Amino acid sequence: MALPAQSTSSEQLDTRLGLAPGTSWKQTGVRRRFLSTTETAAQLAAQACREAMANAGMDWGDIDCIVAASATMDQALPYNAALVHAELGLSKQRTTTFDINASCLSFLVALDTMSYLVQAGRYRNILLVSCDIATFGINWNDLREGGIFGDGAAAAVIRRTGPAGTSAILSSKVDTLSAGVHHCRIPAGGSRYHPRRVLDVPFDPLTVFHMEGKAVFKLASEALPDFTARLLADAGVRMKDLAAVVPHQASQLALTHLSRRLDIASEQLVDIFADYGNQVAASLPTALHIGLANGRFRRGSTIMLLGTGAGLTMGGMVLTV
Amino acid sequence: MALPAQSTSSEQLDTRLGLAPGTSWKQTGVRRRFLSTTETAAQLAAQACREAMANAGMDWGDIDCIVAASATMDQALPYNAALVHAELGLSKQRTTTFDINASCLSFLVALDTMSYLVQAGRYRNILLVSCDIATFGINWNDLREGGIFGDGAAAAVIRRTGPAGTSAILSSKVDTLSAGVHHCRIPAGGSRYHPRRVLDVPFDPLTVFHMEGKAVFKLASEALPDFTARLLADAGVRMKDLAAVVPHQASQLALTHLSRRLDIASEQLVDIFADYGNQVAASLPTALHIGLANGRFRRGSTIMLLGTGAGLTMGGMVLTV
Repeated sequence: MALPAQSTSSEQLDTRLGLAPGTSWKQTGVRRRFLSTTETAAQLAAQACREAMANAGMDWGDIDCIVAASATMDQALPYNAALVHAELGLSKQRTTTFDINASCLSFLVALDTMSYLVQAGRYRNILLVSCDIATFGINWNDLREGGIFGDGAAAAVIRRTGPAGTSAILSSKVDTLSAGVHHCRIPAGGSRYHPRRVLDVPFDPLTVFHMEGKAVFKLASEALPDFTARLLADAGVRMKDLAAVVPHQASQLALTHLSRRLDIASEQLVDIFADYGNQVAASLPTALHIGLANGRFRRGSTIMLLGTGAGLTMGGMVLTV
Repeated sequence: MALPAQSTSSEQLDTRLGLAPGTSWKQTGVRRRFLSTTETAAQLAAQACREAMANAGMDWGDIDCIVAASATMDQALPYNAALVHAELGLSKQRTTTFDINASCLSFLVALDTMSYLVQAGRYRNILLVSCDIATFGINWNDLREGGIFGDGAAAAVIRRTGPAGTSAILSSKVDTLSAGVHHCRIPAGGSRYHPRRVLDVPFDPLTVFHMEGKAVFKLASEALPDFTARLLADAGVRMKDLAAVVPHQASQLALTHLSRRLDIASEQLVDIFADYGNQVAASLPTALHIGLANGRFRRGSTIMLLGTGAGLTMGGMVLTV
């Protein structure tokens, strides 16, 4: 994982916004969030890639594919993985690169999808990296909506499990609840609200993240129990058998609701929200890394990844790490 | 395939720009290009999806995955495939959706990648769709750079080949030449040049496509012969054995250079550039559709897809259609 150099505590945020001490903490549930002020998404992603490679004990020559799995673009063109490839200085090396985007669940979808290509031998070692820089587009005056976000990146190397390995994906599922397609949005940035097309409304508000929290909550919570039951049934395990549940760190409310609704024990839940906020697509792999690094689960443990993202899209995976 | 309602001929462009008759045609090599003036990328993509489904004779209930394979975003968030899913009215249906982005080669990379998931049975029938709306961001005063683009969309359904089928991917390869990462670019649209981050330079020029044509040409033409030789060797076929070569329709110069450099016979080359221009990621599947529909090749023919896109990324595939 990688974090920007700057961070802001709840206390600093109270001072900056002229609020009574404790207000930011109460409204966001985030003690501290990291903010990219000068880093580009490609730089932060590259930093996470270098950490992952060092952890894996691999050389750059071993990597034949890099997949950037982020919710937002660094530039409109070219795609994120090309910018990361350039940032890593790999231009002399033959590498396939492309992006997979399923908003906050990009890492989960990329892991699911690319696992079939390592299994089939299409690639030997794939570097997956998620990075989103979202905090500069935040409306800090609406702390409940904007104050929950933090920047970050996380990366992983995947390859075929060797004869002695136990790593396996037991089940994986992603459903699109597109009735909520506009519930979470950044309207501009693409062709629909390009500044040369949008001439009759102010452009700036279109470049900012908007969420209809209650509508998201309703749609997601209705679908969640059945979704999770199908995911567990496909894997042939019960919730209580899991060593850990690593959820997308959407919000404190979402994490609380998730564990109540699905009967997840507090010792199972990997909750890093207070220290990092919602890191968009980087959330899930960052929580996965921290859960493993902190010994909340270990190699050989069976865990679940689970979350909901803009789309709306609901995704989950049961895997032995 | 699907096209916007509006189009502009070279003659109309001459009149509009106050140029001598024949100037636009001479400078662009495009007789006619289609322009999205009111359509969104999701609407145009959905239209192509409906055509593909009608051609395949399938029901929407058969589709368990939709992959949007475009070079540009419709909105910054959520991803394109969720917007297409909503546009198609599939919100009640369980579908996995996500984007694969490798700029102009997105369709090729998505076809390559997702072929492994149909082969493994992860999905039964996958709808791939490419759509880019780029012409409104064009600098029409630089006809050589901007006048070559056209809007469009194309879609395909892929599934596992049945016992009687001969469809197969014989080889596929994508290399990233990221020394040219900034040769083709739209700087803004993401986090790097977000309007709240870029305060000291004018924002509008950052939202427009820029290309350093000579640098692209140099990098791509150096890599092309060896790349193509490896692609053919992997497939075990020779260039002259191919029923057709379907290139990305980058520019008239690029198509001419490609066929000379690689000894592609004129009856092999599928060249739709004069009638559609460079349709970004939609180019390759549109040319594939037209080549098949016009009988330039048929089911059972072995052909090559080939091209270069922003990244720079070079990709090719030899397949029996």
